Amino acid sequence: MNALTVFSDLALSGAALDLLRSTVLPHRLIEARRPTTSVLAKADADPAFATAEIAFGQPDLDHIRASDRLRWIHLTSAGFTRYDTDSFRGFARERGLVVTNSSRVFAQPCAEHVFSFLMAQSRCLPAQLASRTPNGSAEWLHLRAIPRSPRGQHVLILGFGTIAQSLLPMLAPFDMKVTALRRQPRGDEGVQVITPDQLASVLPTVDHVINLLPDNPASRGFVDATFLAALKPGCVFYNIGRGTTADQAALDASLRSGHLAAAWLDVTDPEPLPDSHPLRSAPNCFITPHTAGGHHREAESLVRHFLGNLERFTTGRSLLDRVI
Amino acid sequence: MNALTVFSDLALSGAALDLLRSTVLPHRLIEARRPTTSVLAKADADPAFATAEIAFGQPDLDHIRASDRLRWIHLTSAGFTRYDTDSFRGFARERGLVVTNSSRVFAQPCAEHVFSFLMAQSRCLPAQLASRTPNGSAEWLHLRAIPRSPRGQHVLILGFGTIAQSLLPMLAPFDMKVTALRRQPRGDEGVQVITPDQLASVLPTVDHVINLLPDNPASRGFVDATFLAALKPGCVFYNIGRGTTADQAALDASLRSGHLAAAWLDVTDPEPLPDSHPLRSAPNCFITPHTAGGHHREAESLVRHFLGNLERFTTGRSLLDRVI
Repeated sequence: MNALTVFSDLALSGAALDLLRSTVLPHRLIEARRPTTSVLAKADADPAFATAEIAFGQPDLDHIRASDRLRWIHLTSAGFTRYDTDSFRGFARERGLVVTNSSRVFAQPCAEHVFSFLMAQSRCLPAQLASRTPNGSAEWLHLRAIPRSPRGQHVLILGFGTIAQSLLPMLAPFDMKVTALRRQPRGDEGVQVITPDQLASVLPTVDHVINLLPDNPASRGFVDATFLAALKPGCVFYNIGRGTTADQAALDASLRSGHLAAAWLDVTDPEPLPDSHPLRSAPNCFITPHTAGGHHREAESLVRHFLGNLERFTTGRSLLDRVI
Repeated sequence: MNALTVFSDLALSGAALDLLRSTVLPHRLIEARRPTTSVLAKADADPAFATAEIAFGQPDLDHIRASDRLRWIHLTSAGFTRYDTDSFRGFARERGLVVTNSSRVFAQPCAEHVFSFLMAQSRCLPAQLASRTPNGSAEWLHLRAIPRSPRGQHVLILGFGTIAQSLLPMLAPFDMKVTALRRQPRGDEGVQVITPDQLASVLPTVDHVINLLPDNPASRGFVDATFLAALKPGCVFYNIGRGTTADQAALDASLRSGHLAAAWLDVTDPEPLPDSHPLRSAPNCFITPHTAGGHHREAESLVRHFLGNLERFTTGRSLLDRVI
């Protein structure tokens, strides 16, 4: 096996960096002079990029197109919007370039994040944690009466991928009815799957909508005013996909009218949402700053996932989380 | 079957009251002139109490002792501290008085409440919800790195009753190691059970301590400075039993030293905790106002549970949730 050159622009230190440096051998590792810190940032140009067969991180489209040697890109995110265009897919096909992402690394944390939202909502935690009311007061009786068990409730999951698969076992102890929206059902989902044309009949029956959609032309603004109006009053909306997939003005209006009981958002458009944005003051709108996939020792998880795929790549096996 | 008289001091209205009034027939229902609104309040004296064979609610000890006719008390709480004395147990035995509680009504909501605490802690929700930091900032990288999956973590449950039984299925998808403390193990718990003398060897290994202990002389101050010091640094403490079972000064000291990573309390001593109490400003101390058992249509759940036991009582079957 010939030694390959791996270009990494992931910001690493400590155990994760040691793991990458030691396990990548006998291949060469080139570490970007200025690593990227965010999926959404544009990578700096680095002349060494052109010498790599493999890119690990968030490589820039222009740098990729300028490279003669690149054969495989392993993205350190689950999202891959900037690569998800007809133009880039055509380029990749022509050049035999393979793209994988890090879905598996983020699936469990993302599922736990949105599930923690659902449990916090069910127990009405924000209001409960803010209250210092005594036993027996009117406020206390009110607070006690709000929580609704997820038991037997109906969840609609928009987008059925690795996150949904990680989420399903967490919902199972609550005997929830689960419906998943998937453009191309495969029949192996293990839950009721619907296509977008069947949405209208399902929306009036759901208690929770969990949006996991990635950003692409078909998903942009998918959860719009019509979608929200069709929901049962008191439904709760969660978004840990991408902010662009929900119409935020419609979301705000639905929260303010009380039709939607609450919204829990890990993603918004833009990020962070300005302090003056209406959703910042909308009733029962709870926002985390795009941290759903974060977890203790995340960098090590990313490196381990890449190294597993590197082993597959060099032994000619199919790669995990291939997206292009 | 002779018609019996049921005295209820539960504050009821709407569907729950209709359900009780219609289903209690052919028995007589006497509704207290001033219903109690809290488990911790003392019931008003009511001359009609003396005519009842059955009391449903939170009857006063003096009224119970003064009654010649009373045969069964069905409490509308899970806690029964005021009845849990040698003196009252002796009185009940002598008089053939049976006491049941409403454990089953509160087990699922209480389990969901503490489980929502555990998930919120795992995803670090309070800090995440308070942050508006942009992608890639130092604060953002820090927030992403804190959450730790419950997967494979070790939970110690203090007190193994109906709440623990409801909690176990929720923990199962996370493959957590579960140990339960029970004074008198029965062997049917389905998890590792230890007795208090075995605590010292377990405490240094646990990631979460879930305190479900009721208040009684043996449990008062059970979680003390020695207990807390023996825990692994970074452990998280949850209390939805009774506030008296934890030494709050020791809890405060452990939080302030950083030894305990967080405390999630639904119960305190007293309730509510004064605004000036140190725990109100202790780091990572999250408090809900004794609402763990609360749930939508709670009164109906209580009435249904009582009516089920009334059917058992009148047909000579053993009662559910008998505590005395």
